[in-house]
Amino acid sequence: MAFDAGESLAARIAGYLTTEIVRGHMISGERIQEARVVNALQVSRGSVREALLLLEKCHLVTILPRRGAFVAELTPQRVRSIYDLYVTLLTMLAEKLAQNWQTERAQPLLQQAAETARLSSVEDHHAFIEAGFETMNRALELADNEYLSTVMRDLQPALYRTVALALRQADGESGFAGQVITDLINAAMHHQYDKIRDLVAAYGQRQCELVLTALQAQPMAERDGRV
Amino acid sequence: MAFDAGESLAARIAGYLTTEIVRGHMISGERIQEARVVNALQVSRGSVREALLLLEKCHLVTILPRRGAFVAELTPQRVRSIYDLYVTLLTMLAEKLAQNWQTERAQPLLQQAAETARLSSVEDHHAFIEAGFETMNRALELADNEYLSTVMRDLQPALYRTVALALRQADGESGFAGQVITDLINAAMHHQYDKIRDLVAAYGQRQCELVLTALQAQPMAERDGRV
Repeated sequence: MAFDAGESLAARIAGYLTTEIVRGHMISGERIQEARVVNALQVSRGSVREALLLLEKCHLVTILPRRGAFVAELTPQRVRSIYDLYVTLLTMLAEKLAQNWQTERAQPLLQQAAETARLSSVEDHHAFIEAGFETMNRALELADNEYLSTVMRDLQPALYRTVALALRQADGESGFAGQVITDLINAAMHHQYDKIRDLVAAYGQRQCELVLTALQAQPMAERDGRV
Repeated sequence: MAFDAGESLAARIAGYLTTEIVRGHMISGERIQEARVVNALQVSRGSVREALLLLEKCHLVTILPRRGAFVAELTPQRVRSIYDLYVTLLTMLAEKLAQNWQTERAQPLLQQAAETARLSSVEDHHAFIEAGFETMNRALELADNEYLSTVMRDLQPALYRTVALALRQADGESGFAGQVITDLINAAMHHQYDKIRDLVAAYGQRQCELVLTALQAQPMAERDGRV
């Protein structure tokens, strides 16, 4: 795999490993062998270690002293925790979007949301998830809170993993998620604050339960090249 | 200044620069001269650069390509943004604390809160702020959400700067802040969710306004060795 310039080398290695984890090529508790990454990407051991530290910060990797790096376990407690925080932040984001709504500034968001809705009906879940995060990023630009942007962008790698599991668990789930995005933007546009809270809470609870079911039903649920 | 082992060198340099910024020894827009930090701490230029990247992530430093690193400007928009996010996260933290409340597990929190209340009446604002963050960290342990912990701990350096400004702006403000901590813990202990929301909202609004007043009244408000 070749990398583009722009990001730091460690960030690009972290991106590669994130893809491996969220696509289920590496699963909960699996040891990440530094030497294998060094060979696969032709990079230095130092930059792989730096990448692992970045992934530890994103909660995708656990580093144990003298034992090495492992794919962070997806425990029920962690799944509930990330959805609790996601619901809180997504509600805040949609509320800020409502407060700041200006139709002329919202065109990039509306276009990206339409593209995401289109992708919700196709087979490729990864394209849908990435388009969904892009929609979040457009909304964050309009919400105009750089602290919220940093926090939500940093949460995306860990969320990617759980969202992918949820979509793999239930047929048609991406259609539901795509509809939530559309409904949320409509609620923000019309300043419907109660609706925003209800939509986000219902979405978070539903997806959290899907992930918990997936983990319980088949502990190896993550082991799947195609989500 | 000598560093202890434990943290990475970059993290320790970042800690040193954070102290310089939050105490007002370096102010909004001031250029951070790499060479001066290299000389003052006897560290390599590479680790200073790494530290500056860490501080950029914490919103304390702005890095401009080919122009260098500057202390991030404390604009009204940024002040409002950080308090918006802080109110959201602090409300979530107190709610989780209420949900998980177990008196026997809460002793370290209660002790730290009592110590913080004690410090709210003394002259040293920095000791009070640091004790306040320690109280937050004890509450985060009980809230048992590692994602929320990461996000709130990462926000502390930027918050430190605004809280210090607020305390410098109004006499007796630390007494008020200390009372809010006590009241919030009581509200969590008694599962008073409405009270949690009201307390946090009022606290955030009051402190945000103090900081905005401080910035408006004296653009050099930060320039003060003693907060």
